[in-house]
Amino acid sequence: MDYYALPIANLIEQFSKLPGIGRKSAQRLAFFVLEMDREEAIRLSQAIIEAKDKIKFCNVCGNFTDSDKCTICKDNTRDRKTICIVEGPRDVVAMERTREYKGLYHVLHGTISPMDNIGPSDLNIKGLLERFKEEEIKEVILATNPTVEGEATALYISKLIKPLGVKVTRIAHGIPVGGDLEYFDEVTLAKAMYNRTEM
Amino acid sequence: MDYYALPIANLIEQFSKLPGIGRKSAQRLAFFVLEMDREEAIRLSQAIIEAKDKIKFCNVCGNFTDSDKCTICKDNTRDRKTICIVEGPRDVVAMERTREYKGLYHVLHGTISPMDNIGPSDLNIKGLLERFKEEEIKEVILATNPTVEGEATALYISKLIKPLGVKVTRIAHGIPVGGDLEYFDEVTLAKAMYNRTEM
Repeated sequence: MDYYALPIANLIEQFSKLPGIGRKSAQRLAFFVLEMDREEAIRLSQAIIEAKDKIKFCNVCGNFTDSDKCTICKDNTRDRKTICIVEGPRDVVAMERTREYKGLYHVLHGTISPMDNIGPSDLNIKGLLERFKEEEIKEVILATNPTVEGEATALYISKLIKPLGVKVTRIAHGIPVGGDLEYFDEVTLAKAMYNRTEM
Repeated sequence: MDYYALPIANLIEQFSKLPGIGRKSAQRLAFFVLEMDREEAIRLSQAIIEAKDKIKFCNVCGNFTDSDKCTICKDNTRDRKTICIVEGPRDVVAMERTREYKGLYHVLHGTISPMDNIGPSDLNIKGLLERFKEEEIKEVILATNPTVEGEATALYISKLIKPLGVKVTRIAHGIPVGGDLEYFDEVTLAKAMYNRTEM
């Protein structure tokens, strides 16, 4: 660490806090920034602060937005009777990329995780229940991840919503398209067998 | 791109300009920043601008520094009679990591590259010649990269300095330690053979 002047060492440290950026990549990024045009560096620096300051959660679904309601909640061409429940905003992006789903979303911002002291009240579940009062929802699709926490969260919400007379579904788990049977664990294979469909 | 609010799209774009950061990693970094504490995000944003504003080139060797002279040039315990010439500041860091070299450096900030319209006058070579007037230099080690441009630059500087009566050496090229003969190209192997040393 002696090799670096303090502002460089500090920049490397800040970069290395980002996910997937190790010490070596952080050094590479820092030197790249030092060799950038000043205007470019300012643009990067300001983009960080601006995103942080302008982006908030959608009042309705909890997705990231720069206004009160996100573009998906505002979009009247979408199927407003279906809500897909996801763990975080990046799951919305993943789902939108498929261009298959035309309903709305609800972002929980986490999963129930007793180990980390995260209970239902720490998630955006209250907001979900309020949506049932305001709109006529016909189906709720639980698209939390197929992890222990994701499954527990799906189960919890399912029990909460079913009494409201809404159809509750869970996304299918199985072998990903292009995947190779031999590389998947027994639980995935068992699920794939169990959820088989007729051809 | 429709999925993202403008400040997010902008942040992703800025991140994806960094080296080694593709579209997907940029998205991951952007979402990570959005989920960061505001103070953390400010620290990252300011580290970029501070590094950019406080770091300049050492008056003597051209390395990055936050004062007039870099720590290596200021360090009187180092061998001031030897100068190792490198292409960029990150080469200084790489060399320092070996903890073997105790001399000084000179950073060229590039290589002679007619293809990119970079000639000797675009490099920090004038500053190198001035160092010979002020200090008694005994050896110059050419540690530019073993590329066409690096070799051409080494040759150019060698011809420039030899008449001053200084010993001029070039770092050795060969098989890296731990490398496997069959994976190296013929030129590297030929160099390794040519530069063999007696055991």
